[in-house]
Amino acid sequence: MRVAVPAETLPGERRVAVTPETVAQLVGAGLEVVVQRGAGRHAFVPDDAYTGAGAVVVEAVDAAAVDVLLHVRPLPPAVPPRLREGAITIGLCSPSTELPTVAALRDARTTSFALELVPRISRAQSMDALTSQALVAGYRCVLEAATRLPRFLPLFMTAAGTVPPARVLVLGAGVAGLQAIATARRLGAVVSGYDVRSSSADEVRSMGATFVDLGLDALEGGGGYAREMTEERARAQREALAPHVADADVVITTAAVPGRSAPLLVTTPMVAAMKPGSVVVDLAAESGGNVEASVPGQDVAVPATAGGGDVVVVGMRDAASTMPVDASRLYAKNVANLLLLMTTDGEVVPDFDDEVVAGACLTHAGEVRHEPTRILLEGGQ
Amino acid sequence: MRVAVPAETLPGERRVAVTPETVAQLVGAGLEVVVQRGAGRHAFVPDDAYTGAGAVVVEAVDAAAVDVLLHVRPLPPAVPPRLREGAITIGLCSPSTELPTVAALRDARTTSFALELVPRISRAQSMDALTSQALVAGYRCVLEAATRLPRFLPLFMTAAGTVPPARVLVLGAGVAGLQAIATARRLGAVVSGYDVRSSSADEVRSMGATFVDLGLDALEGGGGYAREMTEERARAQREALAPHVADADVVITTAAVPGRSAPLLVTTPMVAAMKPGSVVVDLAAESGGNVEASVPGQDVAVPATAGGGDVVVVGMRDAASTMPVDASRLYAKNVANLLLLMTTDGEVVPDFDDEVVAGACLTHAGEVRHEPTRILLEGGQ
Repeated sequence: MRVAVPAETLPGERRVAVTPETVAQLVGAGLEVVVQRGAGRHAFVPDDAYTGAGAVVVEAVDAAAVDVLLHVRPLPPAVPPRLREGAITIGLCSPSTELPTVAALRDARTTSFALELVPRISRAQSMDALTSQALVAGYRCVLEAATRLPRFLPLFMTAAGTVPPARVLVLGAGVAGLQAIATARRLGAVVSGYDVRSSSADEVRSMGATFVDLGLDALEGGGGYAREMTEERARAQREALAPHVADADVVITTAAVPGRSAPLLVTTPMVAAMKPGSVVVDLAAESGGNVEASVPGQDVAVPATAGGGDVVVVGMRDAASTMPVDASRLYAKNVANLLLLMTTDGEVVPDFDDEVVAGACLTHAGEVRHEPTRILLEGGQ
Repeated sequence: MRVAVPAETLPGERRVAVTPETVAQLVGAGLEVVVQRGAGRHAFVPDDAYTGAGAVVVEAVDAAAVDVLLHVRPLPPAVPPRLREGAITIGLCSPSTELPTVAALRDARTTSFALELVPRISRAQSMDALTSQALVAGYRCVLEAATRLPRFLPLFMTAAGTVPPARVLVLGAGVAGLQAIATARRLGAVVSGYDVRSSSADEVRSMGATFVDLGLDALEGGGGYAREMTEERARAQREALAPHVADADVVITTAAVPGRSAPLLVTTPMVAAMKPGSVVVDLAAESGGNVEASVPGQDVAVPATAGGGDVVVVGMRDAASTMPVDASRLYAKNVANLLLLMTTDGEVVPDFDDEVVAGACLTHAGEVRHEPTRILLEGGQ
């Protein structure tokens, strides 16, 4: 069966859905792999590395001749109609927001798998792209903060006196938040972390950070995520967080609620109360923003109330794409692991009795299989 | 006596020669401190913080009424003629390159102290601005590399496989090089270091890095610096370094020979032999460059010989100024410590029998006191 990997088309996207390592795995499983010329360019994978691993490099992928299509970003709605009926796609789908694509996949009778929907169970961890890409994003946030901060993260004891370490506050302690904590700790900062899920307190502490206890009720949701909160609870939380934000040199926000707009954690007055020169990085800028002032892909200067300069608010965009080599390395493994789960003797046959396969399936046989997306879609039509 | 601190005028310079902390020290020693409005702006020190520490903030410094002038960058040649005869200046002077300023200081009969000339002895460490600023620069180089590298520095063991750590090679193991090693190690990279001084091997190893032994003769110079080498030796060194450079994901060069152009360590073919996506940071870009391709303040793309993309060469400029808060904190302490060494009961009287005072003195009573600069200046006139 023919597995095809077109070049990504979204501006700013630098990842690629296969690496030479995963091409070799797929070829070893009896699959034919076709890669569009230049698909790995932004991830520093030359075409001949794919050829060397057993892929065929083509000028353009012939969609009609594809059995399985692997991708990073959600496919444009124009793609599914060009696939043959029953073709399989695997990649990120943003199912709750890219509804025209979901409809196109359904109507083209494509069997599409959304990596966002991979169940968060132990057996599926190796296919969990949200986790692998959040690892990249969390690390990256700290680098973005450190390069903009006008001071050191670590403590230094020098002949000219002691430089105190920077104080870093991480809001949201999922995979990205914990990785941000770990990276800031590596660089020597004094780190504290907060999450609405009380279960995260020990995880935060295990990374060497202090857990900020606001004395509010915990909000545990499904799948390891937080659940949405009332506006009253959100306001109380912001009030309780304000002094912690004001005290920090760096604030990194990573709070997400799946399928919904990111919660507002840090208002502009809270940012303005920080010391001039401080830095706020909003990893959720693209999904509504945890920080009121953030704009995706931009640095926004907020004048400090105390005077003396601005606080910089960094709206992260394409965070994983900023490190395309390792982001692709992990993403391609996630994709290959899901595909290989469905592959036997060179044939890709999804077994919908497998909870991972069934859980990750977005559309199949003309139906939207993911219930929340189906409701969104039918509600919107 | 009146100590004055004008705002720095060089574009890109963000440091300031006093902080509220050092103002308080100087005022405590019986000195009057005058700071130009906005002098601390780029270092996030508001004017009222200076006022609060006991300084007077003025619109413009009246040069004729100044007893001691503190600065960061070498003064423009137009400044010394405006000072009263016998006024004292303390700051960085770049004595081997800023010869018009040296001549102006001499001709105005200014008693100028160059922080570059502070003897590298134990007692003067707290006044050693080259060391304090190199600490900032070394740390900064690693951040610049890490943000441009398309991959992680640390090793990660994830459900989707292991990400190997990046390999960082640091050339030149002075203060900046050792700090670059320490920072890259903090971030989890596998680090190796090289220096022509064999005495640095243990220092490199003590930072957790491997010392690269090229099997060439060592070149120990004075004051903890390397001495210049023959062109033949330099060529042999580049040849021996080439495979180490090719093997690295990040190369950071920090080699300096005082008063001379930086040695060429890495040629463009050496850069081109690196993997695409690799990063080279040349801290010596402003002083001639350790890397043939580097341009100060710019990123230069060198196509990798193997294809698949470019290697980025970062020419560092104003490295210490990129972190003006902590760079100023340390620099201001260096300046204040030298000034206080000459201050008794509110009077600043340099004691030229003190080897630190005598060593740091650039001009006095119409003469250039630093012999190598005097020779350069008279040879150049």
